[in-house]
Amino acid sequence: MGDMSEPAPLKWGLIGASDIAQTLMIPALRRMHQDILGLASNNADHAADFATRNEIPSQHGDFGLGRLLENPDIDAVYVSSTNEHHLAHAEAAAAAGKHVLCEKPLSVDLESARRITAVCATHGVVLGVNHHLPAAGTHRTVRELVRDGAIGRVLSVNVRHTSLLPERLRGWRLSDRPGAGVVMDLSCHDASVVNPLLGTRALETVAITVRQGRWETASEDASAAVIRYEDDVLVRLHDAFTTPNTPTYLEVHGDGGSIVANDVMTPEPIGTVLLRTERGDTEVDVPDRRHPYDVTIEYFARAVGGDGRPVVDGQDAVNALAVCQSILDSAHTGTRVPVDFQ
Amino acid sequence: MGDMSEPAPLKWGLIGASDIAQTLMIPALRRMHQDILGLASNNADHAADFATRNEIPSQHGDFGLGRLLENPDIDAVYVSSTNEHHLAHAEAAAAAGKHVLCEKPLSVDLESARRITAVCATHGVVLGVNHHLPAAGTHRTVRELVRDGAIGRVLSVNVRHTSLLPERLRGWRLSDRPGAGVVMDLSCHDASVVNPLLGTRALETVAITVRQGRWETASEDASAAVIRYEDDVLVRLHDAFTTPNTPTYLEVHGDGGSIVANDVMTPEPIGTVLLRTERGDTEVDVPDRRHPYDVTIEYFARAVGGDGRPVVDGQDAVNALAVCQSILDSAHTGTRVPVDFQ
Repeated sequence: MGDMSEPAPLKWGLIGASDIAQTLMIPALRRMHQDILGLASNNADHAADFATRNEIPSQHGDFGLGRLLENPDIDAVYVSSTNEHHLAHAEAAAAAGKHVLCEKPLSVDLESARRITAVCATHGVVLGVNHHLPAAGTHRTVRELVRDGAIGRVLSVNVRHTSLLPERLRGWRLSDRPGAGVVMDLSCHDASVVNPLLGTRALETVAITVRQGRWETASEDASAAVIRYEDDVLVRLHDAFTTPNTPTYLEVHGDGGSIVANDVMTPEPIGTVLLRTERGDTEVDVPDRRHPYDVTIEYFARAVGGDGRPVVDGQDAVNALAVCQSILDSAHTGTRVPVDFQ
Repeated sequence: MGDMSEPAPLKWGLIGASDIAQTLMIPALRRMHQDILGLASNNADHAADFATRNEIPSQHGDFGLGRLLENPDIDAVYVSSTNEHHLAHAEAAAAAGKHVLCEKPLSVDLESARRITAVCATHGVVLGVNHHLPAAGTHRTVRELVRDGAIGRVLSVNVRHTSLLPERLRGWRLSDRPGAGVVMDLSCHDASVVNPLLGTRALETVAITVRQGRWETASEDASAAVIRYEDDVLVRLHDAFTTPNTPTYLEVHGDGGSIVANDVMTPEPIGTVLLRTERGDTEVDVPDRRHPYDVTIEYFARAVGGDGRPVVDGQDAVNALAVCQSILDSAHTGTRVPVDFQ
């Protein structure tokens, strides 16, 4: 995937003083020698504390979005506000000429997600979406194997993306807020992996979602879906917040062999890739073991510099969302639902 | 599962001169020291050849069903005629007071399968069905682990039962004959495993079936289904005739751990059982490594002697068929279909 030397550093503004910004994105930006100039958040007290803890210049204590976007030094923003605010924040940033790296899901429905993509195009800014999995070295290795024909014609894909939701995360994910629930949280990641892996259109979906956890939840906490892609490829997704001690995996089966990638549905740069053909099993080397956030930032910054495209762009994110929407629609209506794929 | 000493030998008649009788059941009956007294088949030439090759007394060259069932020495019949004849053959055998071990699927639709079960009950003969997988030592070990609470409350099950259909079997399985297609052939086995494993009712199914093979086929050759059982347990089944180099597995996930049984969706007495909990991974000993057909015969013969019940009885087989019927109905109608489970 091109030259791995570091791209020129961008000057960043953060929109949203989120857990994911603090625990994952800020450390990655620093590893990639990017400059973080400011923060916007709707809660000034929380923002002040967050800025101090993360050593972000506070702009004289003003954490308003307008002030951040008025800063002419800022090249790009990372949007990790809650999902229902992505549209407004991305629109404002694009209108101010800032490139946008948006947390996933791109938005809470297809219409607003498409609008973000359109607005960024109109203003000529780069839109990247932090579906981190496609950036992982393991997933890139799997894509290359498939593209190179290592397993022949692909017939089926199976993803298990299950774990026990840590107690500290049992808040809005289990609420009825837009974007809550296991489908928008986890199936979205699966779709961001499977869509570029197959490189074909998702056609239709059947799914059953349930509430299995021993907790109060307003949204589904486990989901099993089957999606038919072009050429009658069957894709199976199992996502759950409820199941401890279950390593994740991605399996790809073709008419010439299989790929089994274990422990790969995670932001950590871990996991293995096994190729199985009639000649036996081979563990495949994964050359890039960088953190997937670093790779996402690298590709985004290069794209801003006119070189290539983000690992996941707006259209990719819209298509991941389209798969999720079809899963939810099928589960709620009890019918097979076409995927609004583009 | 009780005393493993051998049951008293029964005297058997075979109905159907099938490939499975020759390659699997006759060798198993001989290993279990059962006596094979005769054979009925609708093709006298084929039957004569089959009887000679398999050293079955020919009853003076008469391979008619009536003649076989008139033989007062015969205790039990093994029915491996084509699926659409199971009803007539089982009814005739039961009416003649013969116990019935029937090849799977019990019949080609639920109504006729229920009729077989009812007729055998009426005549007071034992009905066993040769879904061999539940008899395998690996599957019995998995059931015991689940029953003993080794993984806590079960939340999901995943079965992969995929391979490349050998060329010699690409006949009626790919036709539009009753009972053809991957769902009746393979999903039926999966359901025979999952139903007793969970011990609860299957409630509703969604499924997509496709034709993936590079061959002419009148029926589906790959299927992906999701079945919701009681207590919101999600069961996923993937069955295919199309996919080489893919070992089979059964995964059971609970709120206290997981069981992964690899290479177990096969009549061969192979496969491993792995238990994964917060204390790590343990390979679980499988004490009984006998061929599953031997176990099926043992339990059937004991049941005939009044001791216990067959591994898979008529009701079990009807419920396996009910799951398959719901998969086919969902795939054909594009809706979520209730399972007619009893």
